[in-house]
Amino acid sequence: MKGGFTLYKYYPIFDIKFTAMKSDSLIFGIYPVEEALQTSNLDKLFVQNGNTNEKINRIVKNAEQKNITIQFVPIEKLNRLVKGNHQGIIAQSAPISFTSIEKVVADALKSNKAPLFLILDQISDVRNFGAIVRTAECTGVNAIIIPKSGAAPITGDTVKTSAGAIYKIPICKVDHIKDAIFYLQSSEIKIIAATEKTDTNLYTIDLKQPLAVILGSEGKGISNSVLNLTDYKAALPLLGEINSLNVSVACGAFLYEIVRQRHH
Amino acid sequence: MKGGFTLYKYYPIFDIKFTAMKSDSLIFGIYPVEEALQTSNLDKLFVQNGNTNEKINRIVKNAEQKNITIQFVPIEKLNRLVKGNHQGIIAQSAPISFTSIEKVVADALKSNKAPLFLILDQISDVRNFGAIVRTAECTGVNAIIIPKSGAAPITGDTVKTSAGAIYKIPICKVDHIKDAIFYLQSSEIKIIAATEKTDTNLYTIDLKQPLAVILGSEGKGISNSVLNLTDYKAALPLLGEINSLNVSVACGAFLYEIVRQRHH
Repeated sequence: MKGGFTLYKYYPIFDIKFTAMKSDSLIFGIYPVEEALQTSNLDKLFVQNGNTNEKINRIVKNAEQKNITIQFVPIEKLNRLVKGNHQGIIAQSAPISFTSIEKVVADALKSNKAPLFLILDQISDVRNFGAIVRTAECTGVNAIIIPKSGAAPITGDTVKTSAGAIYKIPICKVDHIKDAIFYLQSSEIKIIAATEKTDTNLYTIDLKQPLAVILGSEGKGISNSVLNLTDYKAALPLLGEINSLNVSVACGAFLYEIVRQRHH
Repeated sequence: MKGGFTLYKYYPIFDIKFTAMKSDSLIFGIYPVEEALQTSNLDKLFVQNGNTNEKINRIVKNAEQKNITIQFVPIEKLNRLVKGNHQGIIAQSAPISFTSIEKVVADALKSNKAPLFLILDQISDVRNFGAIVRTAECTGVNAIIIPKSGAAPITGDTVKTSAGAIYKIPICKVDHIKDAIFYLQSSEIKIIAATEKTDTNLYTIDLKQPLAVILGSEGKGISNSVLNLTDYKAALPLLGEINSLNVSVACGAFLYEIVRQRHH
Protein backbone atom coordinates (compact mmCIF):
# COMPACT_ATOMS: atom_id res chain seq x y z
CA MET A 1 0.00 0.00 0.00
CA LYS A 2 1.38 3.33 -1.12
CA GLY A 3 1.44 6.50 0.98
CA GLY A 4 -1.09 9.21 0.17
CA PHE A 5 -3.71 8.22 -2.33
CA THR A 6 -7.20 9.20 -3.37
CA LEU A 7 -9.71 6.43 -2.94
CA TYR A 8 -11.71 7.43 -5.96
CA LYS A 9 -11.78 10.09 -8.58
CA TYR A 10 -13.99 11.20 -11.37
CA TYR A 11 -13.13 9.88 -14.84
CA PRO A 12 -16.16 10.44 -17.05
CA ILE A 13 -16.15 9.64 -20.75
CA PHE A 14 -18.93 12.02 -21.35
CA ASP A 15 -20.00 14.57 -18.82
CA ILE A 16 -23.14 12.69 -17.92
CA LYS A 17 -24.86 14.81 -15.31
CA PHE A 18 -28.27 14.43 -13.76
CA THR A 19 -30.78 16.23 -15.90
CA ALA A 20 -34.06 17.86 -14.90
CA MET A 21 -36.37 15.90 -12.62
CA LYS A 22 -39.10 14.13 -14.49
CA SER A 23 -42.35 13.02 -12.85
CA ASP A 24 -42.17 9.79 -14.80
CA SER A 25 -39.10 8.06 -16.17
CA LEU A 26 -38.35 6.06 -19.27
CA ILE A 27 -36.35 2.83 -19.27
CA PHE A 28 -35.28 1.37 -22.59
CA GLY A 29 -33.53 -1.65 -24.04
CA ILE A 30 -34.39 -5.33 -23.57
CA TYR A 31 -32.33 -6.14 -20.45
CA PRO A 32 -33.19 -2.99 -18.49
CA VAL A 33 -36.91 -3.28 -19.26
CA GLU A 34 -36.86 -6.99 -18.40
CA GLU A 35 -35.25 -6.23 -15.06
CA ALA A 36 -37.47 -3.19 -14.39
CA LEU A 37 -40.51 -5.35 -15.06
CA GLN A 38 -39.55 -7.45 -12.07
CA THR A 39 -39.76 -4.38 -9.87
CA SER A 40 -43.48 -4.04 -10.74
CA ASN A 41 -43.22 -0.28 -10.83
CA LEU A 42 -44.00 0.18 -14.51
CA ASP A 43 -46.93 2.28 -15.67
CA LYS A 44 -46.75 1.57 -19.39
CA LEU A 45 -44.84 -0.33 -22.05
CA PHE A 46 -44.15 0.96 -25.58
CA VAL A 47 -43.32 -1.84 -28.05
CA GLN A 48 -42.27 -1.46 -31.68
CA ASN A 49 -44.93 -2.45 -34.21
CA GLY A 50 -44.30 -5.81 -35.88
CA ASN A 51 -41.80 -6.93 -33.24
CA THR A 52 -40.49 -10.47 -33.77
CA ASN A 53 -37.89 -10.54 -30.99
CA GLU A 54 -38.63 -13.46 -28.67
CA LYS A 55 -37.24 -11.74 -25.59
CA ILE A 56 -39.53 -8.76 -26.20
CA ASN A 57 -42.49 -11.10 -26.72
CA ARG A 58 -41.71 -12.68 -23.35
CA ILE A 59 -41.55 -9.24 -21.73
CA VAL A 60 -44.92 -8.33 -23.29
CA LYS A 61 -46.50 -11.53 -21.92
CA ASN A 62 -45.13 -10.82 -18.44
CA ALA A 63 -46.35 -7.23 -18.60
CA GLU A 64 -49.83 -8.43 -19.61
CA GLN A 65 -49.94 -10.66 -16.56
CA LYS A 66 -49.05 -7.66 -14.40
CA ASN A 67 -51.81 -5.55 -16.00
CA ILE A 68 -49.33 -3.01 -17.33
CA THR A 69 -50.70 -0.95 -20.24
CA ILE A 70 -49.01 -2.04 -23.47
CA GLN A 71 -48.93 0.20 -26.53
CA PHE A 72 -47.61 -0.97 -29.92
CA VAL A 73 -46.13 2.02 -31.74
CA PRO A 74 -44.06 2.81 -34.86
CA ILE A 75 -40.28 2.93 -34.42
CA GLU A 76 -40.40 6.70 -35.03
CA LYS A 77 -42.34 7.16 -31.80
CA LEU A 78 -39.74 5.12 -29.88
CA ASN A 79 -36.95 7.17 -31.47
CA ARG A 80 -38.68 10.36 -30.34
CA LEU A 81 -39.12 9.11 -26.77
CA VAL A 82 -35.47 8.33 -26.01
CA LYS A 83 -32.09 9.20 -27.47
CA GLY A 84 -30.32 5.87 -26.83
CA ASN A 85 -30.63 2.45 -28.45
CA HIS A 86 -34.10 1.32 -27.29
CA GLN A 87 -33.95 -2.05 -29.10
CA GLY A 88 -37.69 -1.77 -29.83
CA ILE A 89 -38.94 -1.49 -26.24
CA ILE A 90 -39.42 1.38 -23.79
CA ALA A 91 -41.05 1.27 -20.38
CA GLN A 92 -42.49 4.20 -18.48
CA SER A 93 -41.87 3.83 -14.80
CA ALA A 94 -43.74 5.19 -11.84
CA PRO A 95 -42.20 8.19 -10.04
CA ILE A 96 -39.65 7.57 -7.29
CA SER A 97 -40.85 8.29 -3.77
CA PHE A 98 -38.60 9.47 -1.00
CA THR A 99 -38.64 8.39 2.66
CA SER A 100 -37.72 10.39 5.76
CA ILE A 101 -34.55 9.59 7.67
CA GLU A 102 -36.64 9.25 10.86
CA LYS A 103 -38.66 6.44 9.29
CA VAL A 104 -35.73 4.49 7.81
CA VAL A 105 -33.77 4.68 11.06
CA ALA A 106 -36.81 3.57 13.09
CA ASP A 107 -37.43 0.68 10.65
CA ALA A 108 -33.78 -0.37 10.75
CA LEU A 109 -33.69 -0.33 14.56
CA LYS A 110 -36.84 -2.47 14.70
CA SER A 111 -35.33 -5.21 12.51
CA ASN A 112 -33.20 -7.94 14.03
CA LYS A 113 -30.11 -7.21 11.98
CA ALA A 114 -27.47 -4.53 12.48
CA PRO A 115 -28.50 -1.37 10.61
CA LEU A 116 -26.50 -0.41 7.52
CA PHE A 117 -26.88 2.97 5.80
CA LEU A 118 -25.11 4.56 2.88
CA ILE A 119 -24.57 8.33 2.75
CA LEU A 120 -23.67 9.76 -0.67
CA ASP A 121 -22.34 13.29 -0.51
CA GLN A 122 -22.50 14.82 -4.01
CA ILE A 123 -22.04 11.76 -6.23
CA SER A 124 -22.66 13.46 -9.58
CA ASP A 125 -22.16 10.81 -12.27
CA VAL A 126 -25.41 9.04 -13.07
CA ARG A 127 -23.77 5.71 -13.92
CA ASN A 128 -21.79 5.69 -10.70
CA PHE A 129 -24.91 6.63 -8.76
CA GLY A 130 -26.98 3.90 -10.45
CA ALA A 131 -24.32 1.23 -9.88
CA ILE A 132 -24.04 2.28 -6.22
CA VAL A 133 -27.82 2.07 -5.67
CA ARG A 134 -27.78 -1.38 -7.30
CA THR A 135 -24.89 -2.55 -5.12
CA ALA A 136 -26.56 -1.16 -1.98
CA GLU A 137 -29.74 -3.12 -2.73
CA CYS A 138 -27.71 -6.29 -3.28
CA THR A 139 -25.81 -5.91 0.01
CA GLY A 140 -28.76 -5.30 2.32
CA VAL A 141 -28.33 -1.56 2.88
CA ASN A 142 -31.37 -0.21 4.79
CA ALA A 143 -31.50 3.15 3.01
CA ILE A 144 -29.44 5.59 0.97
CA ILE A 145 -29.12 9.16 2.25
CA ILE A 146 -28.44 11.99 -0.20
CA PRO A 147 -28.39 15.77 0.29
CA LYS A 148 -31.23 17.97 -0.98
CA SER A 149 -28.96 20.80 -2.03
CA GLY A 150 -26.88 19.86 -5.03
CA ALA A 151 -28.85 16.64 -4.83
CA ALA A 152 -29.12 14.40 -7.81
CA PRO A 153 -32.60 14.49 -9.34
CA ILE A 154 -33.35 10.87 -10.19
CA THR A 155 -34.10 10.18 -13.85
CA GLY A 156 -34.83 7.26 -16.15
CA ASP A 157 -31.08 6.84 -16.50
CA THR A 158 -30.78 6.24 -12.76
CA VAL A 159 -33.55 3.65 -12.88
CA LYS A 160 -31.77 1.97 -15.78
CA THR A 161 -28.23 1.92 -14.38
CA SER A 162 -29.57 0.85 -10.98
CA ALA A 163 -31.31 -2.11 -12.70
CA GLY A 164 -34.50 -1.00 -10.97
CA ALA A 165 -32.87 -1.01 -7.51
CA ILE A 166 -33.92 2.62 -7.05
CA TYR A 167 -37.47 1.30 -6.41
CA LYS A 168 -36.33 -1.40 -4.01
CA ILE A 169 -34.32 0.62 -1.53
CA PRO A 170 -35.54 3.68 0.41
CA ILE A 171 -33.89 6.96 -0.59
CA CYS A 172 -33.80 9.83 1.95
CA LYS A 173 -33.14 13.40 0.96
CA VAL A 174 -31.78 15.46 3.85
CA ASP A 175 -31.18 19.20 4.18
CA HIS A 176 -27.64 18.73 5.43
CA ILE A 177 -25.40 15.65 5.50
CA LYS A 178 -24.04 16.81 8.87
CA ASP A 179 -27.49 16.73 10.47
CA ALA A 180 -28.02 13.21 9.09
CA ILE A 181 -24.73 12.16 10.69
CA PHE A 182 -25.76 13.61 14.08
CA TYR A 183 -29.15 11.90 13.82
CA LEU A 184 -27.63 8.52 12.98
CA GLN A 185 -25.06 8.87 15.77
CA SER A 186 -27.81 9.71 18.26
CA SER A 187 -29.30 6.31 17.34
CA GLU A 188 -26.00 4.56 18.14
CA ILE A 189 -25.12 4.13 14.48
CA LYS A 190 -21.41 4.66 13.80
CA ILE A 191 -20.28 6.62 10.75
CA ILE A 192 -17.46 5.13 8.66
CA ALA A 193 -15.86 7.24 5.94
CA ALA A 194 -14.39 5.73 2.79
CA THR A 195 -11.39 8.00 2.45
CA GLU A 196 -7.73 8.13 1.55
CA LYS A 197 -7.07 10.46 4.48
CA THR A 198 -6.23 7.68 6.93
CA ASP A 199 -3.75 4.89 7.55
CA THR A 200 -6.52 2.61 8.84
CA ASN A 201 -7.24 -0.34 6.60
CA LEU A 202 -10.91 -1.31 6.12
CA TYR A 203 -10.11 -4.93 7.02
CA THR A 204 -8.98 -4.00 10.54
CA ILE A 205 -12.36 -2.49 11.55
CA ASP A 206 -15.28 -4.34 13.17
CA LEU A 207 -18.05 -3.89 10.62
CA LYS A 208 -20.67 -5.96 12.44
CA GLN A 209 -21.85 -3.00 14.51
CA PRO A 210 -24.61 -0.61 13.33
CA LEU A 211 -23.00 1.44 10.56
CA ALA A 212 -23.45 4.18 8.01
CA VAL A 213 -20.85 4.27 5.22
CA ILE A 214 -20.18 7.70 3.74
CA LEU A 215 -18.78 8.23 0.24
CA GLY A 216 -17.74 11.66 -1.04
CA SER A 217 -17.89 13.21 -4.47
CA GLU A 218 -15.94 11.68 -7.35
CA GLY A 219 -13.70 14.71 -7.70
CA LYS A 220 -13.13 15.95 -4.18
CA GLY A 221 -13.97 13.09 -1.82
CA ILE A 222 -15.53 13.81 1.57
CA SER A 223 -15.10 17.39 2.82
CA ASN A 224 -12.90 17.82 5.89
CA SER A 225 -15.73 19.32 7.93
CA VAL A 226 -17.85 16.19 7.35
CA LEU A 227 -14.84 13.89 7.78
CA ASN A 228 -14.22 15.36 11.24
CA LEU A 229 -17.65 14.13 12.38
CA THR A 230 -17.13 10.49 11.43
CA ASP A 231 -16.38 7.70 13.91
CA TYR A 232 -14.04 5.74 11.62
CA LYS A 233 -11.98 6.57 8.57
CA ALA A 234 -11.11 3.56 6.43
CA ALA A 235 -9.12 3.04 3.25
CA LEU A 236 -8.88 0.18 0.79
CA PRO A 237 -5.34 -1.05 0.15
CA LEU A 238 -3.96 0.09 -3.20
CA LEU A 239 -1.18 -2.25 -4.27
CA GLY A 240 -0.22 -0.67 -7.58
CA GLU A 241 0.86 2.74 -8.77
CA ILE A 242 -2.59 4.14 -9.57
CA ASN A 243 -3.78 6.04 -6.50
CA SER A 244 -7.55 5.81 -6.77
CA LEU A 245 -10.51 3.56 -7.59
CA ASN A 246 -13.78 4.25 -9.36
CA VAL A 247 -16.25 5.35 -6.63
CA SER A 248 -18.79 2.59 -7.40
CA VAL A 249 -16.03 -0.04 -7.28
CA ALA A 250 -14.80 1.36 -3.93
CA CYS A 251 -18.38 1.31 -2.65
CA GLY A 252 -18.77 -2.34 -3.73
CA ALA A 253 -15.56 -3.40 -2.00
CA PHE A 254 -16.67 -1.61 1.21
CA LEU A 255 -20.20 -3.02 1.25
CA TYR A 256 -19.11 -6.56 0.38
CA GLU A 257 -16.55 -6.54 3.20
CA ILE A 258 -19.44 -5.62 5.53
CA VAL A 259 -21.49 -8.51 4.07
CA ARG A 260 -18.57 -10.88 4.56
CA GLN A 261 -17.99 -9.88 8.19
CA ARG A 262 -21.68 -10.02 9.03
CA HIS A 263 -22.67 -13.22 7.22
CA HIS A 264 -19.54 -15.39 6.73
CA MET B 1 -29.04 -14.89 -0.53
CA LYS B 2 -31.68 -15.58 -3.13
CA GLY B 3 -31.73 -18.64 -5.41
CA GLY B 4 -30.84 -18.15 -9.06
CA PHE B 5 -29.33 -14.78 -9.92
CA THR B 6 -27.12 -13.25 -12.50
CA LEU B 7 -23.94 -11.85 -11.10
CA TYR B 8 -23.82 -8.93 -13.50
CA LYS B 9 -25.73 -7.62 -16.44
CA TYR B 10 -25.37 -4.86 -18.96
CA TYR B 11 -27.18 -1.61 -18.20
CA PRO B 12 -25.72 1.03 -20.46
CA ILE B 13 -27.02 4.57 -20.59
CA PHE B 14 -25.60 5.10 -23.99
CA ASP B 15 -24.41 2.25 -26.11
CA ILE B 16 -20.78 3.12 -25.61
CA LYS B 17 -18.87 0.53 -27.61
CA PHE B 18 -15.20 0.33 -28.38
CA THR B 19 -14.51 2.27 -31.54
CA ALA B 20 -11.81 1.76 -34.13
CA MET B 21 -8.26 1.22 -32.88
CA LYS B 22 -6.22 4.39 -32.87
CA SER B 23 -2.44 4.40 -32.93
CA ASP B 24 -2.48 7.25 -30.46
CA SER B 25 -5.14 8.13 -27.91
CA LEU B 26 -6.47 11.37 -26.51
CA ILE B 27 -7.18 11.93 -22.82
CA PHE B 28 -9.04 15.07 -21.80
CA GLY B 29 -10.21 16.91 -18.73
CA ILE B 30 -8.12 18.09 -15.77
CA TYR B 31 -8.30 15.02 -13.49
CA PRO B 32 -7.72 12.41 -16.21
CA VAL B 33 -4.79 14.33 -17.71
CA GLU B 34 -3.32 14.94 -14.25
CA GLU B 35 -3.50 11.20 -13.51
CA ALA B 36 -2.28 10.19 -16.99
CA LEU B 37 0.70 12.49 -16.55
CA GLN B 38 1.81 10.34 -13.64
CA THR B 39 2.00 7.32 -15.95
CA SER B 40 4.64 9.14 -18.05
CA ASN B 41 3.22 7.72 -21.26
CA LEU B 42 2.17 11.03 -22.78
CA ASP B 43 3.53 12.17 -26.12
CA LYS B 44 2.00 15.65 -26.21
CA LEU B 45 -0.15 18.13 -24.30
CA PHE B 46 -2.63 20.56 -25.89
CA VAL B 47 -3.51 23.49 -23.61
CA GLN B 48 -6.07 26.22 -24.28
CA ASN B 49 -4.56 29.63 -25.11
CA GLY B 50 -4.80 32.11 -22.25
CA ASN B 51 -5.43 29.45 -19.63
CA THR B 52 -5.67 30.80 -16.08
CA ASN B 53 -6.67 27.60 -14.29
CA GLU B 54 -4.15 26.85 -11.57
CA LYS B 55 -4.56 23.10 -11.80
CA ILE B 56 -3.79 23.23 -15.52
CA ASN B 57 -0.76 25.45 -14.85
CA ARG B 58 0.50 22.82 -12.41
CA ILE B 59 -0.02 20.09 -15.01
CA VAL B 60 1.92 22.16 -17.60
CA LYS B 61 4.82 22.60 -15.17
CA ASN B 62 4.92 18.87 -14.44
CA ALA B 63 4.76 18.07 -18.15
CA GLU B 64 7.66 20.43 -18.85
CA GLN B 65 9.76 18.61 -16.27
CA LYS B 66 8.97 15.34 -18.03
CA ASN B 67 9.98 16.79 -21.41
CA ILE B 68 6.51 16.31 -22.86
CA THR B 69 5.80 18.52 -25.88
CA ILE B 70 3.32 21.25 -24.90
CA GLN B 71 1.28 23.10 -27.49
CA PHE B 72 -0.91 26.12 -26.64
CA VAL B 73 -3.89 26.19 -29.02
CA PRO B 74 -7.21 28.03 -29.49
CA ILE B 75 -10.29 26.44 -27.88
CA GLU B 76 -11.60 25.63 -31.37
CA LYS B 77 -8.74 23.20 -31.92
CA LEU B 78 -9.51 21.46 -28.59
CA ASN B 79 -13.20 21.27 -29.54
CA ARG B 80 -12.24 19.63 -32.83
CA LEU B 81 -9.98 17.08 -31.16
CA VAL B 82 -12.53 15.61 -28.73
CA LYS B 83 -16.29 15.54 -28.36
CA GLY B 84 -16.49 15.66 -24.56
CA ASN B 85 -15.83 18.45 -22.03
CA HIS B 86 -12.03 18.86 -22.27
CA GLN B 87 -11.86 21.65 -19.63
CA GLY B 88 -9.07 23.30 -21.64
CA ILE B 89 -6.60 20.44 -21.66
CA ILE B 90 -6.04 17.38 -23.84
CA ALA B 91 -3.18 14.92 -23.71
CA GLN B 92 -2.04 12.61 -26.49
CA SER B 93 -0.89 9.32 -25.12
CA ALA B 94 1.54 6.80 -26.48
CA PRO B 95 0.08 3.64 -28.06
CA ILE B 96 -0.70 0.65 -25.82
CA SER B 97 1.62 -2.30 -26.19
CA PHE B 98 0.52 -5.88 -25.66
CA THR B 99 2.44 -8.66 -23.94
CA SER B 100 2.39 -12.40 -24.60
CA ILE B 101 0.73 -14.75 -22.12
CA GLU B 102 3.95 -16.78 -22.00
CA LYS B 103 5.89 -13.75 -20.77
CA VAL B 104 3.35 -12.63 -18.13
CA VAL B 105 3.00 -16.15 -16.74
CA ALA B 106 6.79 -16.60 -16.63
CA ASP B 107 7.18 -13.21 -14.90
CA ALA B 108 4.43 -14.01 -12.38
CA LEU B 109 5.95 -17.40 -11.53
CA LYS B 110 9.37 -15.79 -10.98
CA SER B 111 8.00 -13.32 -8.41
CA ASN B 112 7.68 -14.29 -4.77
CA LYS B 113 3.92 -13.68 -4.53
CA ALA B 114 1.06 -15.93 -5.64
CA PRO B 115 0.18 -15.12 -9.29
CA LEU B 116 -3.13 -13.38 -9.95
CA PHE B 117 -4.56 -13.00 -13.46
CA LEU B 118 -7.80 -11.56 -14.75
CA ILE B 119 -9.48 -13.01 -17.84
CA LEU B 120 -12.14 -10.81 -19.47
CA ASP B 121 -14.31 -12.66 -21.96
CA GLN B 122 -16.10 -10.12 -24.15
CA ILE B 123 -16.49 -7.18 -21.78
CA SER B 124 -17.89 -4.67 -24.28
CA ASP B 125 -18.66 -1.49 -22.32
CA VAL B 126 -15.71 0.86 -22.31
CA ARG B 127 -16.43 2.34 -18.87
CA ASN B 128 -16.75 -1.09 -17.30
CA PHE B 129 -13.55 -2.19 -19.04
CA GLY B 130 -11.68 0.93 -17.90
CA ALA B 131 -12.89 0.62 -14.30
CA ILE B 132 -11.88 -3.07 -14.28
CA VAL B 133 -8.37 -2.32 -15.59
CA ARG B 134 -8.03 0.37 -12.92
CA THR B 135 -9.21 -1.99 -10.16
CA ALA B 136 -6.89 -4.75 -11.41
CA GLU B 137 -3.91 -2.42 -11.22
CA CYS B 138 -4.90 -1.37 -7.68
CA THR B 139 -5.22 -4.98 -6.48
CA GLY B 140 -1.91 -6.33 -7.78
CA VAL B 141 -3.20 -8.34 -10.75
CA ASN B 142 -0.21 -9.57 -12.80
CA ALA B 143 -1.87 -9.22 -16.20
CA ILE B 144 -5.25 -8.96 -17.91
CA ILE B 145 -6.07 -11.50 -20.62
CA ILE B 146 -8.57 -10.59 -23.36
CA PRO B 147 -9.56 -12.45 -26.54
CA LYS B 148 -8.37 -11.28 -29.97
CA SER B 149 -11.61 -12.11 -31.70
CA GLY B 150 -14.37 -9.72 -30.70
CA ALA B 151 -11.61 -8.17 -28.63
CA ALA B 152 -11.94 -4.63 -27.42
CA PRO B 153 -9.65 -2.29 -29.32
CA ILE B 154 -8.28 0.04 -26.68
CA THR B 155 -9.00 3.73 -27.21
CA GLY B 156 -8.48 7.06 -25.48
CA ASP B 157 -11.69 6.37 -23.56
CA THR B 158 -10.16 3.23 -22.07
CA VAL B 159 -7.04 5.14 -21.03
CA LYS B 160 -9.28 7.76 -19.43
CA THR B 161 -11.67 5.48 -17.54
CA SER B 162 -8.77 3.31 -16.44
CA ALA B 163 -7.11 6.45 -14.97
CA GLY B 164 -3.99 5.48 -16.92
CA ALA B 165 -3.91 1.96 -15.45
CA ILE B 166 -3.94 0.53 -18.99
CA TYR B 167 -0.24 1.54 -19.20
CA LYS B 168 0.64 0.09 -15.83
CA ILE B 169 -0.64 -3.45 -16.18
CA PRO B 170 0.29 -5.90 -18.95
CA ILE B 171 -2.55 -6.75 -21.36
CA CYS B 172 -2.43 -10.05 -23.28
CA LYS B 173 -4.53 -10.70 -26.37
CA VAL B 174 -5.07 -14.42 -26.95
CA ASP B 175 -6.59 -16.27 -29.90
CA HIS B 176 -8.93 -18.27 -27.68
CA ILE B 177 -9.85 -17.89 -24.02
CA LYS B 178 -9.93 -21.69 -23.71
CA ASP B 179 -6.29 -22.01 -24.76
CA ALA B 180 -5.35 -19.32 -22.21
CA ILE B 181 -7.16 -21.33 -19.52
CA PHE B 182 -5.27 -24.53 -20.48
CA TYR B 183 -1.99 -22.63 -20.51
CA LEU B 184 -2.60 -21.13 -17.05
CA GLN B 185 -3.71 -24.49 -15.66
CA SER B 186 -0.57 -26.14 -17.02
CA SER B 187 1.36 -23.62 -14.88
CA GLU B 188 -0.57 -24.71 -11.75
CA ILE B 189 -2.74 -21.58 -11.81
CA LYS B 190 -6.36 -22.31 -10.83
CA ILE B 191 -9.22 -20.70 -12.75
CA ILE B 192 -12.04 -19.18 -10.69
CA ALA B 193 -15.21 -18.07 -12.47
CA ALA B 194 -17.33 -15.17 -11.21
CA THR B 195 -20.73 -16.65 -12.00
CA GLU B 196 -24.26 -17.03 -10.75
CA LYS B 197 -24.31 -20.65 -11.87
CA THR B 198 -23.13 -22.02 -8.54
CA ASP B 199 -24.11 -22.31 -4.89
CA THR B 200 -20.52 -21.75 -3.80
CA ASN B 201 -19.94 -18.49 -2.02
CA LEU B 202 -16.72 -16.59 -2.82
CA TYR B 203 -15.93 -16.28 0.88
CA THR B 204 -15.66 -20.08 1.32
CA ILE B 205 -12.82 -20.46 -1.21
CA ASP B 206 -9.08 -20.31 -0.47
CA LEU B 207 -7.94 -17.39 -2.60
CA LYS B 208 -4.29 -17.43 -1.51
CA GLN B 209 -3.34 -20.00 -4.15
CA PRO B 210 -2.21 -18.99 -7.69
CA LEU B 211 -5.40 -17.80 -9.42
CA ALA B 212 -6.93 -16.42 -12.57
CA VAL B 213 -10.36 -14.81 -12.15
CA ILE B 214 -12.61 -14.98 -15.20
CA LEU B 215 -15.46 -12.53 -15.85
CA GLY B 216 -17.95 -13.02 -18.68
CA SER B 217 -19.74 -10.53 -20.88
CA GLU B 218 -22.16 -8.03 -19.33
CA GLY B 219 -25.13 -9.51 -21.12
CA LYS B 220 -24.53 -13.25 -21.17
CA GLY B 221 -21.94 -14.00 -18.51
CA ILE B 222 -19.37 -16.76 -19.06
CA SER B 223 -20.29 -19.31 -21.75
CA ASN B 224 -20.99 -22.83 -20.51
CA SER B 225 -18.19 -24.32 -22.59
CA VAL B 226 -15.68 -22.00 -20.88
CA LEU B 227 -17.34 -22.45 -17.47
CA ASN B 228 -16.85 -26.20 -17.72
CA LEU B 229 -13.08 -25.72 -17.86
CA THR B 230 -12.80 -23.69 -14.65
CA ASP B 231 -11.53 -25.06 -11.35
CA TYR B 232 -13.89 -23.03 -9.15
CA LYS B 233 -17.19 -21.29 -9.67
CA ALA B 234 -17.93 -18.58 -7.12
CA ALA B 235 -20.81 -16.21 -6.51
CA LEU B 236 -21.19 -13.07 -4.46
CA PRO B 237 -24.09 -13.12 -2.01
CA LEU B 238 -27.05 -11.03 -3.18
CA LEU B 239 -29.16 -10.09 -0.17
CA GLY B 240 -31.88 -8.07 -1.89
CA GLU B 241 -34.32 -8.62 -4.71
CA ILE B 242 -32.13 -7.36 -7.58
CA ASN B 243 -30.40 -10.38 -9.07
CA SER B 244 -27.24 -8.91 -10.54
CA LEU B 245 -24.40 -6.46 -9.97
CA ASN B 246 -22.56 -4.17 -12.36
CA VAL B 247 -19.63 -6.20 -13.76
CA SER B 248 -16.96 -3.74 -12.60
CA VAL B 249 -18.46 -3.71 -9.07
CA ALA B 250 -18.52 -7.55 -9.04
CA CYS B 251 -14.90 -7.57 -10.24
CA GLY B 252 -13.92 -5.16 -7.44
CA ALA B 253 -15.58 -7.27 -4.75
CA PHE B 254 -13.81 -10.41 -6.10
CA LEU B 255 -10.36 -8.83 -6.36
CA TYR B 256 -10.58 -7.10 -2.97
CA GLU B 257 -11.55 -10.37 -1.27
CA ILE B 258 -8.39 -11.87 -2.80
CA VAL B 259 -6.37 -8.89 -1.48
CA ARG B 260 -7.94 -9.35 1.97
CA GLN B 261 -7.19 -13.08 2.13
CA ARG B 262 -3.64 -12.64 0.88
CA HIS B 263 -2.60 -9.58 2.85
CA HIS B 264 -4.80 -9.29 5.98
